[in-house]
Amino acid sequence: MSHQISARHHAPFDTRAGSAPDSDPSDGLPPPGAPDIEIARAARPRAILDLAAETLDIPSQSLIPYGHTKAKIALDYVESLRTRPRGKLVLVTAITPTPAGEGKTTTTVGLGDGLSRIGRKASICLREPSLGPCFGMKGGAAGGGRAQVIPMEDINLHFTGDFHAIGTAHNLLSALIDNHLHWGNEQDLDVRRVSWRRVMDMNDRALRNITVGLGGPAHGVPREAGFDITVASEVMAILCLASDMADLERRLASIVIGQRRDKTPVFAGDIGAEGAMAVLLKDALAPNLVQTLEHTPAIIHGGPFANIAHGCNSVMATDTALRLNDVVVTEAGFGADLGAEKFLHIKCRQSGLRPHAVVVVATVRALKMHGGVAKGALGTPDPEAVRRGGANLRRHLTNLQAFGLSPVVAINRFTGDSAAELDAVRALCDAVGAPVALASHWAEGSRGSEALAELVAERLDGPAPTLRFLYEEQAPLSDKIQTVARELYGAADISLDWLAQRGIAEITEQGYGHLPVCIAKTQYSFSADPNAKGAPEGHVLPVREVRLAAGAGFVVAICGDIMTMPGLPREPSALHIGLNAGGEIVGLT
Amino acid sequence: MSHQISARHHAPFDTRAGSAPDSDPSDGLPPPGAPDIEIARAARPRAILDLAAETLDIPSQSLIPYGHTKAKIALDYVESLRTRPRGKLVLVTAITPTPAGEGKTTTTVGLGDGLSRIGRKASICLREPSLGPCFGMKGGAAGGGRAQVIPMEDINLHFTGDFHAIGTAHNLLSALIDNHLHWGNEQDLDVRRVSWRRVMDMNDRALRNITVGLGGPAHGVPREAGFDITVASEVMAILCLASDMADLERRLASIVIGQRRDKTPVFAGDIGAEGAMAVLLKDALAPNLVQTLEHTPAIIHGGPFANIAHGCNSVMATDTALRLNDVVVTEAGFGADLGAEKFLHIKCRQSGLRPHAVVVVATVRALKMHGGVAKGALGTPDPEAVRRGGANLRRHLTNLQAFGLSPVVAINRFTGDSAAELDAVRALCDAVGAPVALASHWAEGSRGSEALAELVAERLDGPAPTLRFLYEEQAPLSDKIQTVARELYGAADISLDWLAQRGIAEITEQGYGHLPVCIAKTQYSFSADPNAKGAPEGHVLPVREVRLAAGAGFVVAICGDIMTMPGLPREPSALHIGLNAGGEIVGLT
Repeated sequence: MSHQISARHHAPFDTRAGSAPDSDPSDGLPPPGAPDIEIARAARPRAILDLAAETLDIPSQSLIPYGHTKAKIALDYVESLRTRPRGKLVLVTAITPTPAGEGKTTTTVGLGDGLSRIGRKASICLREPSLGPCFGMKGGAAGGGRAQVIPMEDINLHFTGDFHAIGTAHNLLSALIDNHLHWGNEQDLDVRRVSWRRVMDMNDRALRNITVGLGGPAHGVPREAGFDITVASEVMAILCLASDMADLERRLASIVIGQRRDKTPVFAGDIGAEGAMAVLLKDALAPNLVQTLEHTPAIIHGGPFANIAHGCNSVMATDTALRLNDVVVTEAGFGADLGAEKFLHIKCRQSGLRPHAVVVVATVRALKMHGGVAKGALGTPDPEAVRRGGANLRRHLTNLQAFGLSPVVAINRFTGDSAAELDAVRALCDAVGAPVALASHWAEGSRGSEALAELVAERLDGPAPTLRFLYEEQAPLSDKIQTVARELYGAADISLDWLAQRGIAEITEQGYGHLPVCIAKTQYSFSADPNAKGAPEGHVLPVREVRLAAGAGFVVAICGDIMTMPGLPREPSALHIGLNAGGEIVGLT
Repeated sequence: MSHQISARHHAPFDTRAGSAPDSDPSDGLPPPGAPDIEIARAARPRAILDLAAETLDIPSQSLIPYGHTKAKIALDYVESLRTRPRGKLVLVTAITPTPAGEGKTTTTVGLGDGLSRIGRKASICLREPSLGPCFGMKGGAAGGGRAQVIPMEDINLHFTGDFHAIGTAHNLLSALIDNHLHWGNEQDLDVRRVSWRRVMDMNDRALRNITVGLGGPAHGVPREAGFDITVASEVMAILCLASDMADLERRLASIVIGQRRDKTPVFAGDIGAEGAMAVLLKDALAPNLVQTLEHTPAIIHGGPFANIAHGCNSVMATDTALRLNDVVVTEAGFGADLGAEKFLHIKCRQSGLRPHAVVVVATVRALKMHGGVAKGALGTPDPEAVRRGGANLRRHLTNLQAFGLSPVVAINRFTGDSAAELDAVRALCDAVGAPVALASHWAEGSRGSEALAELVAERLDGPAPTLRFLYEEQAPLSDKIQTVARELYGAADISLDWLAQRGIAEITEQGYGHLPVCIAKTQYSFSADPNAKGAPEGHVLPVREVRLAAGAGFVVAICGDIMTMPGLPREPSALHIGLNAGGEIVGLT
């Protein structure tokens, strides 16, 4: 370690021209089994202004540096790109997540590096991680092994401050609402029906349900309130769907903050909040540029939840990347039932973006868990369990085919995978006409993702698919939910609780019936039951409640218990995170 | 404006070598009566890496740029400066604030520019502004007229993210405390005696008094809690007093979060929070470098309250600036009774820093208000009122002399000031032996502060004063409060409420009796009554409560109503802040 520390201190970034694609840019890094933070720290990132100039032809005055290896792309430059043609978009999605791990982000990184390796002008687009889970138990979200984005520590901590800006804009609206109540409530907002909460980028369960305004008349109006984690903020979803600053401000004004006594909605615009919120978000709207370990450009921007929101990086990021590249690889949150469905029905519908290729990430281990194998027994080869669990992969593939897409499968390889198990995956993919590539980018970087890159490149060189939405905007909200539940989740029907029925009626009456639905259900199953692995069928999707996100432009259907403010575990990661004697971060995974 | 906008877009910063000191660097700016934001926007800042290299000789790899005109000075570079001799320190303080305005920050900026103009190698050190008042009614804190620091908009908004980092570190500790209670409370923390609150960089009165942990057993332990504004966080005070990263972490571990049932204190270190907090603060601890309109380097770092905390920029900033310059001009919050007293008794005592010169800022208008003139009547010359109100200035001067210092007076000139009024100020200063300079930096930049700079330079070229603390560390806490109240505030005595008596006994018993006191009283009077202008005498200072800030290293004595979470006014500035069609911020003052 000491040699690497000293190299890093004296030459913190590499100003050489890009490595030739056939060299091994991960030479000199610790082995892939080493902690991700050690690999990331040993890497020699290129100076971001040089990388942007040489790889993407962005002039340095159009970049706003944050240190030497991170930069925002200036909004006026982003605007200037709008006349350029877009490159081709690759969506990376996955089977239903299990505790075995699937590796969607590492595959996105690995595929981007692999495409660069085979000579494509490629960048990747990812979501920004939340601070909350970092100090809880999930760890960071910058990939892993030889497939990481760097500077990993910065990306997992404050990065360029976007989430802080989003939280501040959100909470300014909250403060303006309580201030409005305090000074006479001109809008006649019903204090019992204020739906806008507060946010914090922290796992803090004690803030889920609170009362505010206590202590007497000088201290506001008492009412029930609560905090969500920042990634659950509608402001986050808005920032990620906005096409530009004017659209952002228009959406902010459209946020519903509550209702009057007559049930009519009160908007953020009614209390004049949108201008100051937009000012707080003006830097946050500019996409962030970093790089992979192999110097592939990575635009990391925005990070909405994939249950109560749409779970993809910003439209600004994806669009900007497409104007600058021939190929852009991006990912969507959770499994394809949640992330890809929302990517297509919400992000693509609103923005006009269309994927040219789709990759579904699976692992043998995860398929075995879907086939009923316990986590402790994953070491034993079990092709039969792979076949049983393969039903999960199969349904995700046929679902994507229903959208008019032709997905390919990336098997993110683990050392214990047996030939028979891999054959079992191949066989089921063959049966639905989805080609398969083995990928070992975690261990080998782009060398390990070359086959996957070749497979994706074949798709990219073929004709563009025609995306077909599964429901029309004009369909009633309950029909839209039913369509997704039946056609993608394998449900027999949906059930609408009384609260959900009333909500749908209200939202429709208010003129928002045309919005797409954003279904918030567990990520661990096609159904609302997190224990129903594989490909459950014939279940009923219980819709408890619906919420209007008028600024983001969708209606959230809450199915089951959806947590919008996580808690910390008994022994949170925070207790093991610190600085060593050399001032380096330890314990951040 | 359109010409300036276009010049700004095409040449966002100026890479020329520094202007010769006899040129007028403010040429081409709008007149000083124009809104501050327009002057700031029309300015041509130098590229910060160039300015740092040419003016301060800091190599670019030792700077962490945040855009092209802001940078952090890397911590390892700050460490490397420790062997250099320190330059000379000038403290700018003021008379007791009035609604007429005194202009302490503009004088700090103007004096820095004036010293540069007369050939001294000078920088200034300021506090970072809080977002809360920006959207409330105070406006920004980057100076005004021709005496501003830029980029004004960035400095007044998220700047380099320090306050967000401080808030996050603070709230991580809060979350860990509630998590500790939730999972079994191994430390036996008394849920009724948790003293650590949460913070937000926002004026949000409804969060002052709240209950958290409602909703049932899955959602934490119900208890009373509350939020302060981020600048009131002990983490803020700690960051501003820490000498380095190790000291920061040690102080964080020493924070008292509450008491056990047996009244023994529980520390942040007892629940293992300090490491993760330090990680969150690692970038925030590095000082921020910007510049004045006239390209004088400005280090803007930290911003603790000047009532419940010590109200000065960070020790790291002041010390770093002193290692890089011959002269450093810094300011302390509110009037000299609060800001300068704490600068001397807390910051200087803990850090070993010593001012070589002190400037007390006064205006004729403010002295008239201290002399009983209403704000509406300030237009009429009234030398007699100046003489009456001059008692306020006189006491601040003799107070500073009691510390062994030889203050000079800067009269921050307004156009309506009459010759007779100015003579009245001179006469009273003569009587206590304090030289006076007229300063018109707001209207004229460094041309207007040249006389003040010459006066200060004379002091700097003379012998260093010997700072004398008014109380010894070993004195009992109540004696320390009494010393400040009698010797500086003109009080006859102090009164200790029962809560204060008990607190002093507890804190002394726990071994913290040796800490300096930090008196939290109104900034509008020498007494605890904000309406007692001038130099009230014979009053009794009522001490309601004392609070231990063990990490910061002082004991706060609360006198009267001290607000640690401001509210928004009926018509907050936020309602007028927005972006115009060209994407520029309007309404930020």
